[in-house]
Formats: sequence, C-alpha cells, structure tokens
Amino acid sequence: MERVGFIGLGNMGRGMASNLRRKQFPLTVYDLNPAPVAALGELGAESADSVEALARHSNIVVTMLPGPKEVSATAEQLLCKMAPGSILMDSSTVDPETTDALAKAAAARGVGFVDAPVGRLAAHAARGESLFMVGASDADFARVKPLLEAMGTTVHHCGGPGTGTRTKLVNNYLAIILCQLNAEALSLSAAFGLDLEKTLDVIHGTTATNGQLKINWPDKVLKGDTAPGFAIDLAHKDLSLIVQAANAARVPLPVAAAAREAFSTARAQGFGKNDFSAILDAQCKLAGVPAPRLK
Amino acid sequence: MERVGFIGLGNMGRGMASNLRRKQFPLTVYDLNPAPVAALGELGAESADSVEALARHSNIVVTMLPGPKEVSATAEQLLCKMAPGSILMDSSTVDPETTDALAKAAAARGVGFVDAPVGRLAAHAARGESLFMVGASDADFARVKPLLEAMGTTVHHCGGPGTGTRTKLVNNYLAIILCQLNAEALSLSAAFGLDLEKTLDVIHGTTATNGQLKINWPDKVLKGDTAPGFAIDLAHKDLSLIVQAANAARVPLPVAAAAREAFSTARAQGFGKNDFSAILDAQCKLAGVPAPRLK
Amino acid sequence: MERVGFIGLGNMGRGMASNLRRKQFPLTVYDLNPAPVAALGELGAESADSVEALARHSNIVVTMLPGPKEVSATAEQLLCKMAPGSILMDSSTVDPETTDALAKAAAARGVGFVDAPVGRLAAHAARGESLFMVGASDADFARVKPLLEAMGTTVHHCGGPGTGTRTKLVNNYLAIILCQLNAEALSLSAAFGLDLEKTLDVIHGTTATNGQLKINWPDKVLKGDTAPGFAIDLAHKDLSLIVQAANAARVPLPVAAAAREAFSTARAQGFGKNDFSAILDAQCKLAGVPAPRLK
Amino acid sequence: MERVGFIGLGNMGRGMASNLRRKQFPLTVYDLNPAPVAALGELGAESADSVEALARHSNIVVTMLPGPKEVSATAEQLLCKMAPGSILMDSSTVDPETTDALAKAAAARGVGFVDAPVGRLAAHAARGESLFMVGASDADFARVKPLLEAMGTTVHHCGGPGTGTRTKLVNNYLAIILCQLNAEALSLSAAFGLDLEKTLDVIHGTTATNGQLKINWPDKVLKGDTAPGFAIDLAHKDLSLIVQAANAARVPLPVAAAAREAFSTARAQGFGKNDFSAILDAQCKLAGVPAPRLK
Repeated sequence: MERVGFIGLGNMGRGMASNLRRKQFPLTVYDLNPAPVAALGELGAESADSVEALARHSNIVVTMLPGPKEVSATAEQLLCKMAPGSILMDSSTVDPETTDALAKAAAARGVGFVDAPVGRLAAHAARGESLFMVGASDADFARVKPLLEAMGTTVHHCGGPGTGTRTKLVNNYLAIILCQLNAEALSLSAAFGLDLEKTLDVIHGTTATNGQLKINWPDKVLKGDTAPGFAIDLAHKDLSLIVQAANAARVPLPVAAAAREAFSTARAQGFGKNDFSAILDAQCKLAGVPAPRLK
Repeated sequence: MERVGFIGLGNMGRGMASNLRRKQFPLTVYDLNPAPVAALGELGAESADSVEALARHSNIVVTMLPGPKEVSATAEQLLCKMAPGSILMDSSTVDPETTDALAKAAAARGVGFVDAPVGRLAAHAARGESLFMVGASDADFARVKPLLEAMGTTVHHCGGPGTGTRTKLVNNYLAIILCQLNAEALSLSAAFGLDLEKTLDVIHGTTATNGQLKINWPDKVLKGDTAPGFAIDLAHKDLSLIVQAANAARVPLPVAAAAREAFSTARAQGFGKNDFSAILDAQCKLAGVPAPRLK
Repeated sequence: MERVGFIGLGNMGRGMASNLRRKQFPLTVYDLNPAPVAALGELGAESADSVEALARHSNIVVTMLPGPKEVSATAEQLLCKMAPGSILMDSSTVDPETTDALAKAAAARGVGFVDAPVGRLAAHAARGESLFMVGASDADFARVKPLLEAMGTTVHHCGGPGTGTRTKLVNNYLAIILCQLNAEALSLSAAFGLDLEKTLDVIHGTTATNGQLKINWPDKVLKGDTAPGFAIDLAHKDLSLIVQAANAARVPLPVAAAAREAFSTARAQGFGKNDFSAILDAQCKLAGVPAPRLK
Repeated sequence: MERVGFIGLGNMGRGMASNLRRKQFPLTVYDLNPAPVAALGELGAESADSVEALARHSNIVVTMLPGPKEVSATAEQLLCKMAPGSILMDSSTVDPETTDALAKAAAARGVGFVDAPVGRLAAHAARGESLFMVGASDADFARVKPLLEAMGTTVHHCGGPGTGTRTKLVNNYLAIILCQLNAEALSLSAAFGLDLEKTLDVIHGTTATNGQLKINWPDKVLKGDTAPGFAIDLAHKDLSLIVQAANAARVPLPVAAAAREAFSTARAQGFGKNDFSAILDAQCKLAGVPAPRLK
C-alpha cells in the first residue's frame, strides 16, 4: 500500500484524510492548525513537522489548499524533496495555468502529477462520498485510484494532467451560474405573485431543469441535427417577452439581459432558423472554437 | 359537450385542433391558410367564414396565434360576438400585459377568460402530448380541462387568469437561457480540449444539470436555511477562476461575466458567508421583492 | 404666420409652448391639467376644449406627450380632423415603430409629419434653449423651422420622417449609458481611496471624456484606418486588469464586464491587432451591419 | 543630475528613454532586443550587460515592461542591488496588487517607489508628449518630476505610492469602454440608416460626448444635488425604448443591455425619482462604497 502524505486539513481536507485512514492507508498529515492534526492523530495518522519531512515519508502526496498561491508555494517545497517515481496529487480548486505549471515542474523532477479536484460539498467529503474529476496519465491514475475510491463514490478519469481542473471549472460554471438563473427566475415568479410550489411543479416537469443538456441536446446539436424543434428566432422572441415583462414588473435580470443579446447576436449571425440548441454553434463560432459533436 | 372554436392552425395549432377532433369535440376552425382548414375538415371539423361566425357557433373559443398583436386584434372581434357565459381560451405566447387586458375585456362582456400557453414542441402537440400552464377561475378551469386533456398529457392549474402566461415566461426563461449556459460551458470545454463525452458524464452526475433547483434548493434557501454548504464567497472565487481561465483560453462568456458581477454584488451586499443558494435572497433584495419560501 | 396647436403642457411642453407665444405665434393649447393651460392663457394662447377642436384651428400641431401610447391615441383623434396640407409635429420620445406608423397614417390623410424630439432638459426648454433632432421632408422642415428656432437654439435636420426619433435614441443611448460608465468608474475610484478632484483632473485631460468619438475616431476607424495606435489586444489586457482589480476591491462593474466580453469576442474574431477604435468594425460584423465610414 | 537606468525599450519605452537623453539625463539602458539598445546608444546612452549592473549604476531606475510578471521578476533582481535612497519608478501597466507589493519590497530595502503609468500613445511618447499618473511620496515626486517632464507634457501627482496605477485603471476603464459604447451607438445608427456625419454633428453638440462628467456632474450628484433635471425613471424609460428599437433593428447591444439592468436595479432600489447622475449613488450603494462628493 502506498504511503500517503496529506497537506491541508480544512473543511474538505479533514474529511478526505479521515476516510483515507478509515480505509487503512498509512498516512502522514500536515497543517498549520493543530486541532485537525490532533483529530487525524486519533485515527492513527502521523503528523509531520514540515512539508519537507512529509515529502520524504510519502509515495503519494495529496494537497488540499485554499487557492493557487498556497498550492504553488507548497508544491515548490514538496518537489525539492519528493523522490522520483512518487506522485503529487492536487485536489485544490486552481486555475489551469497553475495546474499546468505544477505538472511541468513535477515532470522535470521525475514526479508524477495528478489533478483531482473535488465535486460535491464538505458533508459529502466527511462521509467519503466525494466526486473526483481526475487528470492523470493512465499509470498514475491506476496508482491514485484506490485513494480516490477511499475518499469518494464517483471517480471520473477525464484525460491527461490538467483535464481534471478544466473539467471542474466547466462543471462549476454550470452549477454556480444555474443558481443565479434560478434566482432570477424565482424573483420574477415572486414579483408576478405566482405560487412557489406551483411554479416548481411546472419547472420540474419541463426541460427547464436542464433536461436540455441531458435529453434534448444529445439528439440535436450534439449530433449535428439543427433542424428546428424550436427555432432560435422563436427563443429570441420569447426571451424578449420575458425581458419586457420583467421590466414591467420592475425586476432586474442581468443574466437574462446578457443571454438575450447572445441570442440576438446568433440571430444577426444567421442562426435564427436553426434549433435553439444550435446556440452552441453560434457561441463556438464567436469564440473561434470548433463546435463539439458526439462521435 | 362544449362546442369548440379554434383559431390559428399553424405548426402547433393544427396538432392541437386535430386532437380535439380525435376526442370527438364538436369543432369549428378558422385560419387564413386553406390547407390546414381542409385537413381539419377531413377529421370532421367545420370551417367558419369569419372570426365572428366562429364566435357565434362556439361555447369555448381557443386562440393559438403568433403574438400579442394578432391575439389582441382577434380577441376584439371575438368578444363582440361571443355569448355571455362562454369562454375565451388563449394558448398563444404573449406578454402579461396583453393577457391581463384580454381578461379584463372578456370580463366586461361576461365572457370567461383562460390563458393556457403551451410547453413542449410542435411534435408533442401533434401527438396530443402537450403541457399546459393554465390561468383560470376554478369554474372556468373545470370547463376547459377536458379540452386540455384531449390536447395534452400534463395540465397545471397555476392560479387565476394571467398566471398561466406568467408561469410560462418563468419556465421558458429557464429553459432558453440554459441553452446559452450550456453553449458557453461546452465552448469552454472545447477550447480546453476536453473530451465531450467525458465532460457530459461528469456534468450529468452533479447538480450542474439543475439538481440545484430540484434537489438542493428545497432543503436550503427555499426553506430559509442559508447556512453555507458552499458559500457565496467560494462560489464567487470559483466563478472568478472560470472567467479568468476562459479569458486565457480566448473564449468570450457573456452570461458568465454577468453572473460573476451578480455574485460580486451579493458579496458587496453582505451575503458572502451565506450558502450559494442564497443568491436568491440577494437577487430578491435587489429587485425589492420578498424572497419566496416553501410553506 | 402658421397657426399652431400644442398638446401636452407637462414639464417640457409648457416651456416650449411659452416660447412659441413669446415669439408671437398664434397658439391654441390643450392639456387635461388646467394650471398650465391658464398660464399659457396669460401669455395670450387660446385654449381648446378638445383635441378635435384644436385640430380644426391649427395648421401645425405639436404633440409633447409622455410616451408612445399617448401619442398614438392623440394622433388618431388629430388626424381625423386635420386639414390636408397641415403638419403634425411630434416632439415626444417614442420608439421608431410608433413614429413610422404616425408618418404613414399622416401621409394617408395628406398631412405632413415631422418627428422632432428634444435634447437637453426642462430648464433649457423654459429658456428657449432646446436642441431638436428633426426628421422631415425638406418642404415640411422649412415650415416648422421657425417654430423650432423659437423654442430652441440648435436644430438638426437629420433626414426624412423617422430620422429625428432614431437620432435621439442613438444620442440618448450614449448620454445615459455614460452615466452608468461614470458611476462605475467613480465607484471604483472611491473603493481605491483615490482623491475625487485629482481623478477628475486626470480624466478630463484624456480621451476618457469621450474625445474618443470627437478626436480619435474621425481620424482612425471612421476613415478606415485601423492600424493600431493602441491595439484591441492591449485594450483587452487593460480591461482584464481593471475587471480583476475591481474584483479584488469588491466593486461589481456590470457594464465593464459586458464590455470585456465584447472585446474578448472581437479578439476571438481576429480583430486583436487592429486599433481599438476598430471595435466598431467588430460590433458591426456581429450585428450584420456595414461599418459606417466618413465620406 | 540623477543617473537614470531604463529597462524595457519596447514601443513606448524607446520613445520615453530617447527623450530622457535629449534632455541630457545620464542614461543606462537594458533590453533583450539589441536594436533599440543600439539606437539609444547613438543618442549617448550606455548599455548595461545585466539588470543588476544597471541597478548599481543608477539613482533612479525606470521600468517599462509588458505586464505584472515581467515587472515583478525584474524588480526582484533590481532591489537586490539598488542602493538605499535610490528610487524605482515603474511606468508599466500593472494591477494594484503588484504595485503595492513592489512598493512594500522597495520600502523594505530603503528604496523609494514611484508608480508612474503612462496615458496617451506610443506616438506621443516618441514626441515627449506623454501623460503620467504618478503615485509617490512628495519627496520622491520632487526627484522624479524632472524625468517625467522630460518625457511628457502632463504630469498628475495623484497621491502616495499605488495611486498612479489605480488612477490609470479608472482612466482607461472610461477610455476603453467608451469605444464599445461608441461602437454600439454607431452600429445602431448604421442599422437605422442614419447619415454618419449628421449623427456625429448631433452627438458632438450634446452631453453624449461625456459632457456628463465634465459639465453636469460637478453641479449635480458630485455636489450632492440629486433633484431631478432628468430622472432615473425617465432615463430607464429611454433606455428601454433604445433596447427595444435595437432589438427590432436586429442589432445586439451587450453593454446597453447591462446598463439597462443597472438602471432597473437603481429604480428597484428607490432611486427612480433622483436625477440620472445619481446612478452614481445607486452604484456606490450596491458596491458598499461611500458615494464620492466634491469638497
């Protein structure tokens, strides 16, 4: 069994490390805060005096830190001491540039690099029910997989190093902005004087709860079928009614306004007669990116 | 059985009217285009020479027209001839102001008014599988319900006149803007060089496919629990990483940018330590609307 | 001298009408509010009992009303009674669709139509110092010009009917959104702890006070010269610094965020090496409109 | 006379350095690119073999580099060798965080720090006509002033270290976003079929060319006078007309849409009856920043 080092026993990290111990991984931990170190000690983890000491004791080091700066600084110290053939696995949420720099620095020292950021919340981490989006070579993935399965119930191998971080950003983009979308929709519903339970009943029965991406899109734009079930021109017309009605109800909707202009641009770019899922093609054309298709 | 008049045999309307005939409703239809009128004739519908003639023959008149202008003009003609105690049911997508004006004009003539806009697509309408969001008094709803059940499989009675139109706007707001959100997310995924299938696998397993509204929110903000599972400050930090990474990848994300500023405003307004579902409370405070809660 | 009718003695209207009287125009006024009617009476204006009566007494009727609905309703009454060869001049702020409909209705009755919306404020109107943006045929313009010169100090003949309203929208777009821009800039300055007087000193000495459009653009993009004085790529880089610094200072900047994505789109569309005034060309390409150039 | 070191002979830097030589400052230059180094040599500048060598020869070192990363890396090398009592002056465009870190690092070594970013373009720099926004202690400002006056015609002392960079960001925010604003306005004008020259004539005669900030604001909101000359409610109504007309003309206006929602938020927050310059107060309230006022 791999000897594991774990740095960063914050809200998420202590739950993750605890589950490694529960599955009997030999574990050394490091954190500036003595309380979680002591708590892990009671589960049988050793504690290291320094990042460097931890690096020397471990085959695989997991970092779970607040942000890019902390991760970069810690990795610099770690990589001075980690043995070639060992693995650095970062589960922090960082930008792709930081992840790519870490992967490169690790490779230069003969150390494997895995980015494995976490989906779901601290409560899931405590119960060993996290979700991981993993960027790793196949060989490194095979080595870290038992750790990930000790800490979580869902493990996605997304591709080589860097793809875990990037997938997490795409995923969180959707999950977080959906909240603003929901907030705008329900504030409008409240301003309209609608009954909340009834509104939710309706929404939950339509593609408004993102059946779009799960049900419609795989059979439409993602297969290259942009014949209109519901055309961008009509979607634009509906959005315009919504923006106008919200305005009359004195409810500001910043995301709706931005989206309306995006549909307006798509219309001006000649996508108006296409299915509204083809807003994907319009956005990709604007971004200069090939529109993705299912194989 | 009620004698039904149906005006507007376009893409959606001809499917809806056909299903009324299949369920044996006595039906008179009117449209400027002779082809669908003839098709309905083959199913046993009569055709009227004018809107007024149709009004005189029907207890319930259904309108399914392109937009507010057409609906208002047709309703004006109808209401001159419809008998007190009859019902005007509009299934077009219009703004609340138009709906409210129709309801008022109908009431002034002793005619009942029902707004029953349609969810789902023309293909569903053809198969009698539409979804209706209905604003009507209880008495009027009881009378139109058999018609709606002939044309669709899901019928939501949302409240009094005007609530059907408003619920449709809220629902379509979500369904349509989700497309722009999905488009931005997948264009970013493509710019990142991620594998589409793997990205979809991940997204479909998280709240990114709007489990937010279905799973998380009813237990969090909608119950008034805003203790942070994932705080607005952290969501803001993640959004900032996403916006920065997209920028580095040269992908414009107009909706993400607007949403980031909304989270930034929520943070500046003191909501940073609340759960990210409390973006609802921040948005409602900005709009001057009471934040909706489940009973 | 033309006999003038004036309908709408609100904040702006009473100042305008007063100046017509001061320059001795024979004047009949109409308003539901008796106070300004009496005040105009003291300046020698007659008062009409109805819109129709006013129409019959006047060669030129000026309307200055709150919005499209009031203008359309009043014009309908007026046009029934105005003699062929008379002129209807609307100075209200309305949408182009309304203006075009009025022009068409007037033409059908042989009545000339002039749209002459007002720039500047009520205080200017009171002093006879308004600015007018006028859409009119050359012949009609010649007839209304003395009235406009009685009421204002600046009269722009923008083209045929409809161009006055459209020019006002373009002008107000700039004037109003500049306020939001200024607000964002000064809120950022305040959050940065900068001295307001010094900030204004700096801003007033650069193209930040829209010398862009007055000084730079006529020699750059509007002449087709898009060689970079300051490239879109650099402007985008600066905008990114600003958005990031505002974010660190916890100041939401919704317009800056939208503009950054617009520059990001321009960059993705291949305009990055062009002068930043060429954002005009990028925007026009998105809108499917030919980029305007000075002759 | 101070011995000056200059690092970064790019587009802007070579013009600036040349003007220092023309005014006879003893000058040592450093750049990786040999061509501009040779050109400066012909004007009598010496060239240093390394950043460190330049540091040892200079009382004042000027850096003019592409971005935060280059500035930070160079400053680290410089500060190891610069004598206490010397001054590091950075004219690059960087974020406030970088500037603050440089100021702190310099202070720790007894070295003065000045941030003096540049307004205007490379053509101005070549002619010694730059504009500088300077953050410096009074003593350091007195020492660098002769250099700045050799390189430019306008020198603003904005306050202590860090205020130059911040003022530049605020200034560029306005100057750059104005371009997007102008672009949207002129694309709308083009879509409306208006004559470009006439549109510019009108715009240049109103506050649309930012007389707002120069003429109106100092007498209105910046003095605390928010009595309505033109109320936010009316500005919002006009913006709504504009957005609707642009939509009808099929022109996407992302910045206008964002600004409309900002006015909508101000209205919902109770600012509707205030002068439209009070959008400043609305924005500052959202940002949690005290609204700035002239003394």
